[in-house]
Amino acid sequence: MIDHTHDPAARSCVPGADGHPDFPIQNLPLGVFFTDGGPRRAGVAIGEHVLDLAAARAAGLLTGEAARAVAATEGGDLAGLLALGAGPRRALRHGLFALLSTDGPDRDRVPPLLHAASSCTLHLPARIGDYTDFFVGIHHATNTGRQFRPDQPLLPNYKHVPVGYHGRASSIRPSGTPVRRPHGQAKPPHLDAPVFGPSRRLDYELELGVWIGLGNDLGTPVLVAEAAGQVAGFCLLNDWSARDIQGWEYQPLGPFLAKSFATTISPWIVTPEALAPFRIPQPSRPPGDPAPLPYLLDPADQAGGALDLELEVLLSTEASRAARLPPHRVARSNARHMYWTVAQMIAHHTGGGCNLRPGDLLGTGTLSGPDPDSCGSLLETSQGGKVPIRLETGEERRFLEDGDEVTLTARGVREGFAPIGFGACRAIVLPAL
Amino acid sequence: MIDHTHDPAARSCVPGADGHPDFPIQNLPLGVFFTDGGPRRAGVAIGEHVLDLAAARAAGLLTGEAARAVAATEGGDLAGLLALGAGPRRALRHGLFALLSTDGPDRDRVPPLLHAASSCTLHLPARIGDYTDFFVGIHHATNTGRQFRPDQPLLPNYKHVPVGYHGRASSIRPSGTPVRRPHGQAKPPHLDAPVFGPSRRLDYELELGVWIGLGNDLGTPVLVAEAAGQVAGFCLLNDWSARDIQGWEYQPLGPFLAKSFATTISPWIVTPEALAPFRIPQPSRPPGDPAPLPYLLDPADQAGGALDLELEVLLSTEASRAARLPPHRVARSNARHMYWTVAQMIAHHTGGGCNLRPGDLLGTGTLSGPDPDSCGSLLETSQGGKVPIRLETGEERRFLEDGDEVTLTARGVREGFAPIGFGACRAIVLPAL
Repeated sequence: MIDHTHDPAARSCVPGADGHPDFPIQNLPLGVFFTDGGPRRAGVAIGEHVLDLAAARAAGLLTGEAARAVAATEGGDLAGLLALGAGPRRALRHGLFALLSTDGPDRDRVPPLLHAASSCTLHLPARIGDYTDFFVGIHHATNTGRQFRPDQPLLPNYKHVPVGYHGRASSIRPSGTPVRRPHGQAKPPHLDAPVFGPSRRLDYELELGVWIGLGNDLGTPVLVAEAAGQVAGFCLLNDWSARDIQGWEYQPLGPFLAKSFATTISPWIVTPEALAPFRIPQPSRPPGDPAPLPYLLDPADQAGGALDLELEVLLSTEASRAARLPPHRVARSNARHMYWTVAQMIAHHTGGGCNLRPGDLLGTGTLSGPDPDSCGSLLETSQGGKVPIRLETGEERRFLEDGDEVTLTARGVREGFAPIGFGACRAIVLPAL
Repeated sequence: MIDHTHDPAARSCVPGADGHPDFPIQNLPLGVFFTDGGPRRAGVAIGEHVLDLAAARAAGLLTGEAARAVAATEGGDLAGLLALGAGPRRALRHGLFALLSTDGPDRDRVPPLLHAASSCTLHLPARIGDYTDFFVGIHHATNTGRQFRPDQPLLPNYKHVPVGYHGRASSIRPSGTPVRRPHGQAKPPHLDAPVFGPSRRLDYELELGVWIGLGNDLGTPVLVAEAAGQVAGFCLLNDWSARDIQGWEYQPLGPFLAKSFATTISPWIVTPEALAPFRIPQPSRPPGDPAPLPYLLDPADQAGGALDLELEVLLSTEASRAARLPPHRVARSNARHMYWTVAQMIAHHTGGGCNLRPGDLLGTGTLSGPDPDSCGSLLETSQGGKVPIRLETGEERRFLEDGDEVTLTARGVREGFAPIGFGACRAIVLPAL
């Protein structure tokens, strides 16, 4: 729902917030931060600052339902707030918008509540219960499937089932945490037996993450028409993947250690309210594709359940940073390349009674576009390692090298609205132990 | 390590504990219970009673390291105790053994600490972080693989990789919680397109569960020689499976909703100390099988890392219960049919740096034996639904019907030691919504 908090003319009393590429007053994403080793605190990003939510409440500047929403974040974990659902979350957004507006009556009381973002360390915003990764990027599914099955890249279930699998929750880390190149078993084609050693085909995957809010009881499916109400927000997600380990281990039970050594997410929860301007209809299915089964089909979801978000993958290397070159843009894609909506993912996930809990995280799967420069993984960009990409330093990459730093970005841009961003999802690759 | 707590001549002051099939004084498994809607409390099973651990500590009957172990269970979650590792867990065992012995000096003070097991409701013993299911039952892997690939039942990686995958933690429930038959997508062979509806091929899987104690830091593998120290205890685990959903959904990312509607575990944590008498050498690999890679090989683990536990699957139906017939024993197997030890599972799981946390749960995979009457799932027993089993009621079963109740049991039996059991892992199938 579009309201006054989406007014592109709105201005903030916080210096530097207006026109900020990620966090103008129209965004107001939620996170958990600490400063100087202090306790974890809930905060909201505004420009280059973080507002302390509990301090704002203690000062009497957030009241009513907004104050109750803040009270649910005690202990520095947002799961309790996510569990409250859309009403309190919206009330908090409206309270924050009023507080941080340039013409807010309490604007003089805002500065003591702010921390410079550069002095803040961001945590995971909630303890993640279960993490499920989907596979809804149809171009990614096609590109990777083609490497194994040129004649039939997509398996028969793909256009019927929002395919997903369980991922590892314990190894999810916020942006900025380095990623250690994993050891693992792989069987190179030229060897008769597998070897154990550092992965030689380390890769990223460009995904969106979805934070679950309300949750559902075991045995009680979430209907597709109600599924959007389960979503408490979004983030970027890098599903780091060791392709050599993956190729050897994944039959018959799916990816396991090839992906469970690390997953990086952007630490700010961008709310459904902030993303309202960037909702679009689910793109029509190509002629001949089957219609979704009824449990996956809702007119409102089809009319506005997709997202128009510009996505990028940026890569810097030790050499490029030494030469002070800007990161190389490896890919540019869009969240609209999802064959299934988030609501369909949730309706499917819960259709057999599986319960979601507040603070659960879903990944969309890699969101590649249809073009070679829109691939969300190096496996696709390099066509399985056959075609290297060339960097401005003269270096080549088929897969990631030690010292490479990968940054994912997402931005909503639409005529008549203020652009907003997700903040960075970034990590550097450390050498194997 | 065998010590005085394993003495088969030891007797308990608790009536009915001596000779109890599951919980004599030589077992002392840990759990979380409540009575009459009260708070969750940590307890230990002794015969047909549950001893309240916090009450024993408050009465000064558990002191020193044992008392500190009990203090870690406050709030009715054992994860804090599991995280302490073997030392405090052993101290608690020794303290409990002394307290509950027939000749203990405080035996007169024990009765007020006891609750009748029939008045206790058992919870999950800990909040489960991540749940990982393995596939180490080689007969199960062979039996199920044969249905798809008669000439090559085992995939090439099986004898090199302790294959596993991530399971769903949110839907794990303690014994006694009914299981709702799930809806899901399936594509019967005679149809061109999938349908959504109640599963028609509902099945159980006979597994052991492994509770993780210490845990490890992200990026720091657990060496196979140290992996046994990660194990805080064992339980039974029924990995309920909807075979029709599984067959349609599992390519290419593995089982998902076919298994995430419910997992049942026995609620008592049987400790490694209680199971010490039932340790056996890992069975030799058949001639021609590859040796495990070095990161999976430890002499002590090979010499004593396997378990000799008798396992059973019992089935009752509405008709059999109405006729007051005892449950039908569908299968009899043994935990020794694991191609990989628990230590190998843990060394593999963490070998690339993936972190385990206290309260994580591992499943072994279905522990079928080599014989037709030792199959740990109906998929195997009925050969994919082709050969029904006959029950004493005259009923047949290819897969589970509504009203069927499945019970898993595990028992350690060894000459010179008191037999111990795990308690039941039981649930009844409710009709689909």
